Amino acid sequence: MSARLDAQFAFLMEADKLKQVIRATTLADGSRRENSGEHSWHLALYALVLADHAGPGVTIDRVVKMLLLHDLVEIDVGDVPIHSANGEAHGSAEVAAAEARAADRIFGLLPADLGTELRALWEEFEAAVTPDAIFAKSLDRVQPVLHNLASGGGSWTEYEVTFEQLEARVGAKVARGAPSIWTYVRARLQAFFPDLS
Amino acid sequence: MSARLDAQFAFLMEADKLKQVIRATTLADGSRRENSGEHSWHLALYALVLADHAGPGVTIDRVVKMLLLHDLVEIDVGDVPIHSANGEAHGSAEVAAAEARAADRIFGLLPADLGTELRALWEEFEAAVTPDAIFAKSLDRVQPVLHNLASGGGSWTEYEVTFEQLEARVGAKVARGAPSIWTYVRARLQAFFPDLS
Repeated sequence: MSARLDAQFAFLMEADKLKQVIRATTLADGSRRENSGEHSWHLALYALVLADHAGPGVTIDRVVKMLLLHDLVEIDVGDVPIHSANGEAHGSAEVAAAEARAADRIFGLLPADLGTELRALWEEFEAAVTPDAIFAKSLDRVQPVLHNLASGGGSWTEYEVTFEQLEARVGAKVARGAPSIWTYVRARLQAFFPDLS
Repeated sequence: MSARLDAQFAFLMEADKLKQVIRATTLADGSRRENSGEHSWHLALYALVLADHAGPGVTIDRVVKMLLLHDLVEIDVGDVPIHSANGEAHGSAEVAAAEARAADRIFGLLPADLGTELRALWEEFEAAVTPDAIFAKSLDRVQPVLHNLASGGGSWTEYEVTFEQLEARVGAKVARGAPSIWTYVRARLQAFFPDLS
């Protein structure tokens, strides 16, 4: 029992470091940048609150678990903003390889049964093929849009993002898992992107 | 659809403020105080990772939901540290009444069906009667113990907490829902409280 708890708490203490990984997006009031720990909490709450916008075959409890775990690899790799390097850093082969090594190390702290189970959920999220993962990804993409709208631009201003880039990098993925949410949010973007028809 | 999403996003944007509620406990490395948003994420992760220490009749998915919601009332009331006011502020009738008013306001932002459902989960957590709520409370109490141990005292030093006070205010509640975890953690307290037998 004690060796198992040693491993469980080693993982939980390591996870604490996610609270020190800083994202490009600010809090909704723009007062400071968000960290990936509180971001993960907020997304899990998104899943609970927006469950009725999920497509068929989505199990919200699994979506919540994925969102709680989805950014842990950033403890080693850091956050790679969607709009950085003209949108090309996020999802690059180098970042994916570094995240896989991070997953080896971090989920490897857990007892083997639990590490295998939670890592499989993280891999399912990353692959974005199952309905649960697709919905989880939609929430991960849409939350910064709400914060940028509320704070008057945020990371869009910083990275000089056009509406076309936002639609391609963000809108398409939100619409894939949660079309009704993207329709709603897209209509609110007109004030910020006047060229949006 | 649009009015419903207005209400759902109003709640989610309000919830963002929980990231600015500062707790007495620090991060594990002592570098800064923890906020209640990232704390809620960490606790939900505790529930996933320590599920095998839950008693009979516990449904971890419900525990996770309770922990995601449990501190939202702090947006209005603030965090009331366990050891503040010689341990008498936490759980006082005045605090409970203020938290109920906060729950009225915050869960009241949601569409009625969803607000009723999530508020009921928060009330179940607060009542600490069901197996799910008792386990959730155990995790809420044990996480700061780990951080204080890691950072060399933390809020115990600040509030001059004795081992007897810690056992009464914290240990009893951890042991109620997760006895194997308290046995494990209690053994690690000897280094900090030399009078512990």
